[in-house]
Amino acid sequence: MTHPAQQFASDNYAGICPEAWAEMERANGGSAVAYGDDAWTERAADAFRRLFEKDCEVFFVFNGTAANSLALAALCQSFHSVICASSAHVETDECGAPEFFSNGSKLLVAPSASPKLTPAIIRTLAGSRSDIHFPKPRVVTITQPTETGLVYSLDEVRAIAAVCRELGLKLHMDGARFAHACAALGCSPAELSWQAGVDVLCFGGTKNGMAAGEAVIFFDRALAEDFDYRCKQAGQLASKMRFLSAPWIGMLESGAWLRNARHGNACAARLAAAIAGAPGIAFLFPVEANSVFLSAPDGVLDELRRRGWRFYTFIGGGARFMFAWDADPARVDELAADIRAAAAAAAEPLRSSVA
Amino acid sequence: MTHPAQQFASDNYAGICPEAWAEMERANGGSAVAYGDDAWTERAADAFRRLFEKDCEVFFVFNGTAANSLALAALCQSFHSVICASSAHVETDECGAPEFFSNGSKLLVAPSASPKLTPAIIRTLAGSRSDIHFPKPRVVTITQPTETGLVYSLDEVRAIAAVCRELGLKLHMDGARFAHACAALGCSPAELSWQAGVDVLCFGGTKNGMAAGEAVIFFDRALAEDFDYRCKQAGQLASKMRFLSAPWIGMLESGAWLRNARHGNACAARLAAAIAGAPGIAFLFPVEANSVFLSAPDGVLDELRRRGWRFYTFIGGGARFMFAWDADPARVDELAADIRAAAAAAAEPLRSSVA
Amino acid sequence: MTHPAQQFASDNYAGICPEAWAEMERANGGSAVAYGDDAWTERAADAFRRLFEKDCEVFFVFNGTAANSLALAALCQSFHSVICASSAHVETDECGAPEFFSNGSKLLVAPSASPKLTPAIIRTLAGSRSDIHFPKPRVVTITQPTETGLVYSLDEVRAIAAVCRELGLKLHMDGARFAHACAALGCSPAELSWQAGVDVLCFGGTKNGMAAGEAVIFFDRALAEDFDYRCKQAGQLASKMRFLSAPWIGMLESGAWLRNARHGNACAARLAAAIAGAPGIAFLFPVEANSVFLSAPDGVLDELRRRGWRFYTFIGGGARFMFAWDADPARVDELAADIRAAAAAAAEPLRSSVA
Amino acid sequence: MTHPAQQFASDNYAGICPEAWAEMERANGGSAVAYGDDAWTERAADAFRRLFEKDCEVFFVFNGTAANSLALAALCQSFHSVICASSAHVETDECGAPEFFSNGSKLLVAPSASPKLTPAIIRTLAGSRSDIHFPKPRVVTITQPTETGLVYSLDEVRAIAAVCRELGLKLHMDGARFAHACAALGCSPAELSWQAGVDVLCFGGTKNGMAAGEAVIFFDRALAEDFDYRCKQAGQLASKMRFLSAPWIGMLESGAWLRNARHGNACAARLAAAIAGAPGIAFLFPVEANSVFLSAPDGVLDELRRRGWRFYTFIGGGARFMFAWDADPARVDELAADIRAAAAAAAEPLRSSVA
Repeated sequence: MTHPAQQFASDNYAGICPEAWAEMERANGGSAVAYGDDAWTERAADAFRRLFEKDCEVFFVFNGTAANSLALAALCQSFHSVICASSAHVETDECGAPEFFSNGSKLLVAPSASPKLTPAIIRTLAGSRSDIHFPKPRVVTITQPTETGLVYSLDEVRAIAAVCRELGLKLHMDGARFAHACAALGCSPAELSWQAGVDVLCFGGTKNGMAAGEAVIFFDRALAEDFDYRCKQAGQLASKMRFLSAPWIGMLESGAWLRNARHGNACAARLAAAIAGAPGIAFLFPVEANSVFLSAPDGVLDELRRRGWRFYTFIGGGARFMFAWDADPARVDELAADIRAAAAAAAEPLRSSVA
Repeated sequence: MTHPAQQFASDNYAGICPEAWAEMERANGGSAVAYGDDAWTERAADAFRRLFEKDCEVFFVFNGTAANSLALAALCQSFHSVICASSAHVETDECGAPEFFSNGSKLLVAPSASPKLTPAIIRTLAGSRSDIHFPKPRVVTITQPTETGLVYSLDEVRAIAAVCRELGLKLHMDGARFAHACAALGCSPAELSWQAGVDVLCFGGTKNGMAAGEAVIFFDRALAEDFDYRCKQAGQLASKMRFLSAPWIGMLESGAWLRNARHGNACAARLAAAIAGAPGIAFLFPVEANSVFLSAPDGVLDELRRRGWRFYTFIGGGARFMFAWDADPARVDELAADIRAAAAAAAEPLRSSVA
Repeated sequence: MTHPAQQFASDNYAGICPEAWAEMERANGGSAVAYGDDAWTERAADAFRRLFEKDCEVFFVFNGTAANSLALAALCQSFHSVICASSAHVETDECGAPEFFSNGSKLLVAPSASPKLTPAIIRTLAGSRSDIHFPKPRVVTITQPTETGLVYSLDEVRAIAAVCRELGLKLHMDGARFAHACAALGCSPAELSWQAGVDVLCFGGTKNGMAAGEAVIFFDRALAEDFDYRCKQAGQLASKMRFLSAPWIGMLESGAWLRNARHGNACAARLAAAIAGAPGIAFLFPVEANSVFLSAPDGVLDELRRRGWRFYTFIGGGARFMFAWDADPARVDELAADIRAAAAAAAEPLRSSVA
Repeated sequence: MTHPAQQFASDNYAGICPEAWAEMERANGGSAVAYGDDAWTERAADAFRRLFEKDCEVFFVFNGTAANSLALAALCQSFHSVICASSAHVETDECGAPEFFSNGSKLLVAPSASPKLTPAIIRTLAGSRSDIHFPKPRVVTITQPTETGLVYSLDEVRAIAAVCRELGLKLHMDGARFAHACAALGCSPAELSWQAGVDVLCFGGTKNGMAAGEAVIFFDRALAEDFDYRCKQAGQLASKMRFLSAPWIGMLESGAWLRNARHGNACAARLAAAIAGAPGIAFLFPVEANSVFLSAPDGVLDELRRRGWRFYTFIGGGARFMFAWDADPARVDELAADIRAAAAAAAEPLRSSVA
């Protein structure tokens, strides 16, 4: 079977990066103890501890749905609630997984106008009700970068963490693209997580270049109590764990985690630069990480589809393009050219009719 | 890192077989649509349909815990119950996963004396209570081969299916090592599943030579309604699905699924033959698939451990050895020699004292 | 202990009406079989069947939280969703009970501007997403009358039911004050439920004059399959069931269910009439059932509190007054007088300053 | 409707005792704040604090299924397990409620030979597994008196509590008939609960003479954190709470709780004394509380049924008779006479044929 031409509809369209692949191959050289009691898993966990400069607890699970839902379930009882942005993936794209894993914890969703959570929003949501007829707020979750490609600054994260501590809330970070945020901010993983006040981080491997797998990282070890049982019961304990953990060694020890993210971010910036000023094209959100969200006149998106491009339009009515570790700059340029051409063509009749 | 010497404590200690690896590598050659809407996933599902000679519904999930628990949850409501053997993995080794995924379905466990379920046991368990103070039986689950390495004959499966139909119960087969059962019986997958009356089969890929992944196969498509939503919500939808599905192409199209299983079975038979008659050594169960369960006098197991062998002893107090696709016959012979030596050494003082 | 002066903060402040009490007392005259297999329970269920002119399935549970949550759980799987208004009690005041009982079903909440669901809103919500990353809509729930005291007309219910049928959705009615809706519309229970297309109705007894208890009524018996098991498992099967069912006999056979509701509605109308035109006082919603929602200038509500009145202000920022079967018209008049006095006093300085 | 002749099949067949009824009637004299913020509920909770000589946390729920399941859910996460006797009501008669409320906690059931849990059994069950593939033991639950009418002595409870503390387990007591145990032992509620090491007690009101309702009592207030939310979400918060709490005032302040229990126990002893020595009649368990379990020759139970007696036979194959607060001694004597007559008749042919 042949692969289709590269698309930028999702960073999940990408394959496995060489560094992850190589370590998976090495791990496949022989026999190893099952369920994580093997040398690869230990080394991968240690690699995280070094990366985060912290003796944290690290768990490897299969995907982001499970990573975030299990982490939230560990922080909540069923009658608690989780404060999140209206665009939060846990709210919009997990088919009720957080509610399922927690057996009912409700998401308290911020007004949709705000793409990021803020201390003020958290305060309002947390304080809106305090009677037992409404779930008790217990956790704040932020996605870093957001699903719309915005990056919380260190100060923004710190301010959110401060209000969480004040209100007795835990702070969870959905880091499906955590590496991209580090790359964007130029800060260390430690600075952007526990040093900024994050209690639990889900560090995404899939979108960072792996086949599958996310790391759930508890900076406060007390919060990780019995989390291994929780993973097992929820179908998230890999029997041949080394194939889930070894790729992380490749990612972290080689620095690919950051290189891959920088590349994705750079491709997004490249596209943004190349199409800036095209007639009728506007950016729905500032381009800060590895995605570009466009609004475009009628016909432009249709024309792009006609030219073979795939993209999602479920956010803000515009088109989303996302760039993974393997995004081919030449292909990005093709996309830019097609966008400019489509925009120009759409503008033409208008200009004509005006003229 | 170097791999330790091969062990037979579990068939989860094995790596990825060449056929699965090669297809995963091919799948990694470029970009592909996420969440299973890709060519590899379609081809893998079709390969199952051909293998089973049936237009069945096929879902790919990460592991056996999830495969079995989701399948049972699809067949049950929370107030229903699942009839199983006392040695069933869902009862003994899933940390309550079936209860978690179903939100409370109880397992009705057969008396421990019987290693297999029988029509009589099912009838007794299903008929023991019919009031609303006890969960209503809805599903029978059998593990094929059993956790103790026994293989249900085609007639046994058919007889169980007949009583299920009579009592209005669905029949689920935990096929973590389904391939080994086919190999042992010399029958086709179709004969051993839907033609024998099985409604849903979880076909194990991990123990068959893959990195991870099981296929949940619904022979009655009506039972699969919305199962894709169920998988998604439960954290079992892979975003880069092709890496979970492509290995199946390698396994099924090349025939590795059966070759691997035959090899495992043969290694078990090889060990059994080599140690038969060793003093004090007895088989806890007939050796029918890829495992050997031994009982041995005091000291023999300790001696084996001293010689570096790893094995589990949680079933029946004896030692379990399991043989995967990569079991090295020479290493099997080493194990056999060590068992014989340890058995002889243990018997010596006894013989001396008798003499 | 003495009872405080009557308050209208909630119709849950009322006691047990004489008709319910008398039948409970009769039921207490001797011994009866437990768990609903008694003559009172049978007679109560039959009374519902007569009232609804339909051979429906009737279950008696302890309260409305459970009634609605169990009914929705019976209609949904965990990965399904329930369409409701933003003011729906299941969304705003059940502490996540629907999500808990269903193990994760999400509520799809209509935009808050609309106090009632409409076919258009349902169509929009049901059609907003159709991918497996979002829970699949399965049920529409409407509260009749709404939490803000509005009554869906027969035509409105029929139109909602029609769109439900078209879209493959079930229609659930939260009838915590169903009797008040019947009283307001002057229609029969049958007309307002199954004849209008309602699949499952939760008929409230508590707010209608009982100590506790709601009836879950399935007009399509197939939907009630194993619902008795569901109630039992969820802690909603009363052992001395007759004390939950007998009061219904008193309510239904005597006609108290309707008399009580009419009285509550009449008291709301009485208050509304008495305060209409008071300076600065406005009705947040039309007064159609047994509640009155007021907006009032600063100081008026404080003054009412100072005069000893209790009321909730969590809806729309105004004050809610609700009238139960036992509302004393003289006390309603006292409230009206106090509202007028407080309004006048608050208007005084304003008028003075204007003058 | 007329009441049938008194039966002793269950103590749930009894009605409401005068003391509970009277207080419920007083509570019905007027209006009261909803959801437990009323004077009756406060006074009932205080009555428990006085009775237990402890500033404990008290919650009123509708029935025993909920009381026990919620208490266990508060002590467990879904991946924990609960150690119980094989005859424990939570295992045999709750339709999977504990698993439902906890979202999957498994019950670790003692071997069926033992009617009571013992430190040795707990130690064995708690120590049987310590890997993450099996739920982690967290709670021990004992029913006092047991479902078979046996009463744990103070020393037995203390010994169980000691092993719980040693193993890091919490101790829950299902006290559906706690009053009967106090009556049987002649000890104080405090002695039999927290002073003996019980962490949480479910004190049964229904079988003690109320219409419905159990009190969940946390002696360690930290364990009760947010339990009010848990009750609400699970459909166990009564809106007109006073009708659930006021009867407790009648029970506790008047001493009826103990009088009722003593009467039930005395009736059981009366029956036991009256039939002791009847040919072929044997007691399946020592008669220590308010139940009598009989084994009897073929035909005796049929004859009793023929004479109109109702009883359960699902435990041990014999007949269970249970005596509530309202058991009529004359009716107990009728039962005794019928048992003796049936036994004699059954023995007759045997004796004839022997002669």
